[in-house]
Amino acid sequence: MNIVLLDPRQPQSEIWTISAKRQLEHLQTHLDIQVGDTLKVGIREGKRYLTEIIEITEKTVRLKPLKEEAVPAKLPVTLIVALPRPKVLRRLIMDATTLGVEKIILLHSYRVDKSYWQTPFLQQLDHYIELGLEQAGDTIAPKIELYKRFKPFVEDVLPTLISTDCPAYVAHPYTENKMPFAIEHPCTVVIGPEGGFIPYEVDLLIKNGCQAVSLGNRIIRTETVIPYILGRLFSTA
Amino acid sequence: MNIVLLDPRQPQSEIWTISAKRQLEHLQTHLDIQVGDTLKVGIREGKRYLTEIIEITEKTVRLKPLKEEAVPAKLPVTLIVALPRPKVLRRLIMDATTLGVEKIILLHSYRVDKSYWQTPFLQQLDHYIELGLEQAGDTIAPKIELYKRFKPFVEDVLPTLISTDCPAYVAHPYTENKMPFAIEHPCTVVIGPEGGFIPYEVDLLIKNGCQAVSLGNRIIRTETVIPYILGRLFSTA
Repeated sequence: MNIVLLDPRQPQSEIWTISAKRQLEHLQTHLDIQVGDTLKVGIREGKRYLTEIIEITEKTVRLKPLKEEAVPAKLPVTLIVALPRPKVLRRLIMDATTLGVEKIILLHSYRVDKSYWQTPFLQQLDHYIELGLEQAGDTIAPKIELYKRFKPFVEDVLPTLISTDCPAYVAHPYTENKMPFAIEHPCTVVIGPEGGFIPYEVDLLIKNGCQAVSLGNRIIRTETVIPYILGRLFSTA
Repeated sequence: MNIVLLDPRQPQSEIWTISAKRQLEHLQTHLDIQVGDTLKVGIREGKRYLTEIIEITEKTVRLKPLKEEAVPAKLPVTLIVALPRPKVLRRLIMDATTLGVEKIILLHSYRVDKSYWQTPFLQQLDHYIELGLEQAGDTIAPKIELYKRFKPFVEDVLPTLISTDCPAYVAHPYTENKMPFAIEHPCTVVIGPEGGFIPYEVDLLIKNGCQAVSLGNRIIRTETVIPYILGRLFSTA
């Protein structure tokens, strides 16, 4: 937790209050805060501030904003991912948020186990987004969309996310073209499930505007390949 | 598991045998193997082969090698990481292995909890290396070294890992210079603990040949920043 995210109603008063149990516990256990210390705070969907701690009680920490700080820029990328196993989903949402992905789309595909759509984690995405934002020092949540049907998404929605200024890349092991690097334009990235997209799905993605690109001949897990690809694509950031 | 790793003694006979419980369970549960199927197999520290399954019993799968396949190239990088929490360590070793890191050095630093050096995971690194290799389709384990004292390591060992052809970068948030990208030479990368290196440590690293470089103003967790940096540095790979 590198900033504490607060509710957007806080700036209506001059003194702000941290009262969420998770945040208080973290501050007390890991940071050993004292009155007079400064603390980085973000207003959810708003600005970021350096604040001063003016009171610590058992159930609240009270703060006075000192000055505004810059919110880190987002990466101009839409990440489309075949819905992974629940444990991986949790990490993926946190990490993609931390890295600054603008929009995350979770998609069904042939090799996605249907039971994954029943996981309670899908009801708690906002919690993992909050953890990811607090890690990064960001305040703006990525947009998240879920599509339970592959074909209608690829045929009707995906083309609206692709243009000459915003190409789409699908990571695919068996292709000559390499994933680009150090791009300086927005893009859409499509990541398959464990075991990969089936050939019909890859064909449909290509037919609807995606470029199949390879990352070399190592097979990398979903949760690991996402930071690997983002580091590569946005290396001038 | 994208290949099955076998003991180096296997190629001494014409028929090879998988008998490790973990590997058999994976093959039976996830791959539904049948006699006559092909299977990718690697000889630990050796070559990689396409094989044919010729017999399946409850406790063994027997294989006949068909042809040799290419082992993926390593990334020419030494990764020096402040020893992380045990759970993170496990992922880090697996992921760094999967991504092809040549050498991993685990190092003590001021903000590393001393109890981390007692974790049983440190006795099981070879297991996580095996999982990482089987994920990637690789057969060659990265070298792993442990240094429990920061200063002697940085002063005596680190300089031997740095040269004009092999610079060292320490990821540091408060510096003007950016982490390079798309390099085409070997390098050494140094990653601090949760909370970062203390100023004394950063100074000592710089004094002993490291360049402090920044990844922008997001703060990224150790396990996420490693693939992010490797994707950035080796994007022409």
